[in-house]
Amino acid sequence: MVEESIKQLIQSLNVFYLLAGAVMILSMHAGFAFLEAGTVRKKNQVNALVKIIVDVAVATLAYFFIGYPLAHKIGFIKPAAELVSDQGFELVRFFFLLMFAACISAIVSGGVAERMKFRPYITAGFFLAGIIYPIFEALIWGERWSPAFQGWIEKMFGAPIHDFAGSMVVHGLGGWIALPAVIILGPRMGRYIKDQSKPIPISNIPYLALGSWILIIGWFGFNVMSSQSIESISGLVAVNSLMATAGGLIGGVLIGKNDPGFIHNGALAGLVAICAGSDIVNPISAFFIGFVAAWIFVKAFIWEQEKLKIDDVLGVWPLHGINGVWGGIAAGIFGQEALGGLGGVSIISQFVGVLLTIIYAVIAGFVLYKVLDVIFGLRLSEEEEFNGSDLSIHKVDAYPEDSLKV
Amino acid sequence: MVEESIKQLIQSLNVFYLLAGAVMILSMHAGFAFLEAGTVRKKNQVNALVKIIVDVAVATLAYFFIGYPLAHKIGFIKPAAELVSDQGFELVRFFFLLMFAACISAIVSGGVAERMKFRPYITAGFFLAGIIYPIFEALIWGERWSPAFQGWIEKMFGAPIHDFAGSMVVHGLGGWIALPAVIILGPRMGRYIKDQSKPIPISNIPYLALGSWILIIGWFGFNVMSSQSIESISGLVAVNSLMATAGGLIGGVLIGKNDPGFIHNGALAGLVAICAGSDIVNPISAFFIGFVAAWIFVKAFIWEQEKLKIDDVLGVWPLHGINGVWGGIAAGIFGQEALGGLGGVSIISQFVGVLLTIIYAVIAGFVLYKVLDVIFGLRLSEEEEFNGSDLSIHKVDAYPEDSLKV
Amino acid sequence: MVEESIKQLIQSLNVFYLLAGAVMILSMHAGFAFLEAGTVRKKNQVNALVKIIVDVAVATLAYFFIGYPLAHKIGFIKPAAELVSDQGFELVRFFFLLMFAACISAIVSGGVAERMKFRPYITAGFFLAGIIYPIFEALIWGERWSPAFQGWIEKMFGAPIHDFAGSMVVHGLGGWIALPAVIILGPRMGRYIKDQSKPIPISNIPYLALGSWILIIGWFGFNVMSSQSIESISGLVAVNSLMATAGGLIGGVLIGKNDPGFIHNGALAGLVAICAGSDIVNPISAFFIGFVAAWIFVKAFIWEQEKLKIDDVLGVWPLHGINGVWGGIAAGIFGQEALGGLGGVSIISQFVGVLLTIIYAVIAGFVLYKVLDVIFGLRLSEEEEFNGSDLSIHKVDAYPEDSLKV
Repeated sequence: MVEESIKQLIQSLNVFYLLAGAVMILSMHAGFAFLEAGTVRKKNQVNALVKIIVDVAVATLAYFFIGYPLAHKIGFIKPAAELVSDQGFELVRFFFLLMFAACISAIVSGGVAERMKFRPYITAGFFLAGIIYPIFEALIWGERWSPAFQGWIEKMFGAPIHDFAGSMVVHGLGGWIALPAVIILGPRMGRYIKDQSKPIPISNIPYLALGSWILIIGWFGFNVMSSQSIESISGLVAVNSLMATAGGLIGGVLIGKNDPGFIHNGALAGLVAICAGSDIVNPISAFFIGFVAAWIFVKAFIWEQEKLKIDDVLGVWPLHGINGVWGGIAAGIFGQEALGGLGGVSIISQFVGVLLTIIYAVIAGFVLYKVLDVIFGLRLSEEEEFNGSDLSIHKVDAYPEDSLKV
Repeated sequence: MVEESIKQLIQSLNVFYLLAGAVMILSMHAGFAFLEAGTVRKKNQVNALVKIIVDVAVATLAYFFIGYPLAHKIGFIKPAAELVSDQGFELVRFFFLLMFAACISAIVSGGVAERMKFRPYITAGFFLAGIIYPIFEALIWGERWSPAFQGWIEKMFGAPIHDFAGSMVVHGLGGWIALPAVIILGPRMGRYIKDQSKPIPISNIPYLALGSWILIIGWFGFNVMSSQSIESISGLVAVNSLMATAGGLIGGVLIGKNDPGFIHNGALAGLVAICAGSDIVNPISAFFIGFVAAWIFVKAFIWEQEKLKIDDVLGVWPLHGINGVWGGIAAGIFGQEALGGLGGVSIISQFVGVLLTIIYAVIAGFVLYKVLDVIFGLRLSEEEEFNGSDLSIHKVDAYPEDSLKV
Repeated sequence: MVEESIKQLIQSLNVFYLLAGAVMILSMHAGFAFLEAGTVRKKNQVNALVKIIVDVAVATLAYFFIGYPLAHKIGFIKPAAELVSDQGFELVRFFFLLMFAACISAIVSGGVAERMKFRPYITAGFFLAGIIYPIFEALIWGERWSPAFQGWIEKMFGAPIHDFAGSMVVHGLGGWIALPAVIILGPRMGRYIKDQSKPIPISNIPYLALGSWILIIGWFGFNVMSSQSIESISGLVAVNSLMATAGGLIGGVLIGKNDPGFIHNGALAGLVAICAGSDIVNPISAFFIGFVAAWIFVKAFIWEQEKLKIDDVLGVWPLHGINGVWGGIAAGIFGQEALGGLGGVSIISQFVGVLLTIIYAVIAGFVLYKVLDVIFGLRLSEEEEFNGSDLSIHKVDAYPEDSLKV
């Protein structure tokens, strides 16, 4: 009887614990919204805010009806009485994992900002959370294919693909899906003139900083609660997340030369990179992983924007894509016992994971946005883009009272 | 001895759990503050921020000394040693329920914005949290009258009035109290000229969005922790809240035609409506309830402002009042087992609850604001209103550095 | 076996509990950032935001490698396997206590704003979190000297120095370190002309309010989780924090004459003052302590800025320093059983604590900033200060798009 009551209590606690994580990641979407609102021009701030919050709603529908059943073989079209038999733990698990799924579109959003039509953007969000993400999730984490696939990987290379909180599954996937989307869409008007790069000034660094802070705070739910049960909570995950944030910040200061954009995004780069190995690497390695992530972000951002001439507005490909890859590989290196890690990882498996992420994401992203381009056209008209997506799509700009006065 | 230590642990956990809820709802007041600051004109932003935060303080006093003892028959004018005998659980319960009480004035605030004097506003807040709300709370939830009254309702109509997290008790009450307050106060200068509606542009959509996000995140504490003990936590409540948010957002997009105000408030409308039945309805019903709530909000807002010519600045009557009613009724419908709910509700009881809410709120609100009008006068002078409540009341505006330059 | 599994569960819960506190205090740093960004001029907003977030990173390094081992005799340069033997509880305790350490520099930041060089500022942050704070912490709280020192204090004066959540150890220390820093640095250009005070208008009250709200919310983690174990959680701490906030707000309204700066800072003053005694005083005393704290803040701020002509931009000496002292003494008074407190405090011990705080902080702060002044020079050049630290240090201002247009 005592054992029964302990079991009951742990059930309740797991609902509470995972829910805390889910709500923290939900709050990260506010972070995505303000990070983008601060980075785009004033005339596109409303659109940035609306895209992200509506994404959450669309992803909820897509993942509830399609994505979660697809990846985890459990659906929720049942009477409430059945849904509460486990105190709603499975529902909360859906909520928690949905919040990851919804990140994919939020990541893409930053890349395609300031020039994309609303309807195809939202439609893409539905397919990302309903199908494209869940298929990949099912392979690495989900109940559907993961046991067989990861079992096979383990047999081949000595350990399954290790991606504790989604450097590859979430950030890598999102960042590498964004790449074809951004390329198909093309650069904003005036961004590159006669092959010359003409950087477009951002609107609001306090919003950018607010977004970054909200993301940093929520990320502790993203990483820590990825253990999915209170009994497997690990303080190491939390402190590694902190150390990677610190490394990313210091990297942002030193390599980004005090630039506030590089500093605030440096923290995020560190957090992207630590996701995969946060449960197994040493805190000192975590600091190093974060520092390198900021270095990668700064260098790759400049290379992307100036050399490759890809107009990825928030730099989501370097931030989430390339650093997702770095995170996947870093888990394989610094997770080794010889380097102070907990072991149980294989560098080859990590490379397979990284390759799989890139290939799957680029193909899926290319097909998705190409098809949507054919059906809807992805891009605002020149006039609409010039007037800003706020006025064009939402019939209002971010500061109506001020606009009236001018 | 083991049983004793489990009991002790559960006590600690309940303090932690309910406190998490209390702090989350406290944060919602920051959401109210920014939602209002973004929706009013720049010259009234400071007043919006100050009203809400001072409300919290005034409500704390009123509910500590009067409201909580009135509704729950327990007071706290005791030595600390007695207050910690239960690890302070009763104190935390006070904190949690106080946060609901403080919402009433925060709701009214949005309706009476930009033209009301500070002193009567704050005085009203004291009576709302100290007397008017607690009396109603005592009837539906509290220890004082609820057992007798709800017992009688149950005997009459088959089930007590079901209002899990306060669609009626909190939001309905607040919204229907705001209605007479707004009418007594009258429209802002220039809002209706010769019977023509002249909408006043809002100042800052990013603030509005920030406020909405803060409210959405905190609302998970509002709803989930309404179970008031960790052992009765229900994942269904959380996911229903999420589904109603999603429904409200989609409704805001479709019915509000991409308007950012309708979208961000649509989420809130969904959350208002799901409060009552979040513990018993099916997630699919929750989505529908949220969607309808957004539809109600958009339609009722336009009807109120354009046809009835009521200058309810944030639309708090449609948002909290009418949608609180919808939430109360929806719990009676979709809570039925036949519709996938958990049962134990009566539509007639819900109608009684709704009627009671409306009648009590309108009378209480009318009397309160009429009396305050006679004593203090509710309204700023024309000159004060023209200059803005920031300069008139707080002797400073929201951006002093900028004002100096002009 | 049941007892073992309960022990295990409590271990997990303690990690979760203390981590929740750590993340809440981490979020407070976003509050410091926005409070300062709103209070400085626009041309220094970026620098305010960057200083605080980079501080967190620098403090993390300093406290990980030096500070925590110094105060608590435990280091973390170990393989991960050893670090997770307690589920990472010690790591999370490091994270939690680090967040206090990082506050010192964040407090100083508000005083030295708008005119200090970045490199000496950051270097100071390293020494504050790595050495100066830990030495004091070791005396009052830490494993290194506290048992002997506090034992001696108890033998001498009847009770150890009581400082539950750091009115003295954190806020007092920070505020009294800021005082010599601000004096050495001297006032901003144009702040005092020919001995006349010329107040410099602040830029953004909504940012100030946002910062204040974030601090208030996070403070519940600061205070409540200072119990450091779930089993010793106390609802009294939470409600006392709330009551002190309420007292500070009411004080801000009445003594600060509706000024939004005094109101929002009044809440913080109340929270600073309640830290020390939040676990032992009566809620009614807590309200009074908060009210007096706001009174002290308003009066001392005006005295400091107008009479003493100290250009402490955010008023961190009155806010954290003087109110930290008030908090330490108030715990000694209102903690007495005769005044409804839980007892176990000595007024003389509290005075000793307060004196120690002031002496240690002033000397340490004076030496630190003098040495840094000699090595680096603390102050921006006149031209740099005139152009603003954003352009001078970060090569960008807070609103690049707007600046371009002008």
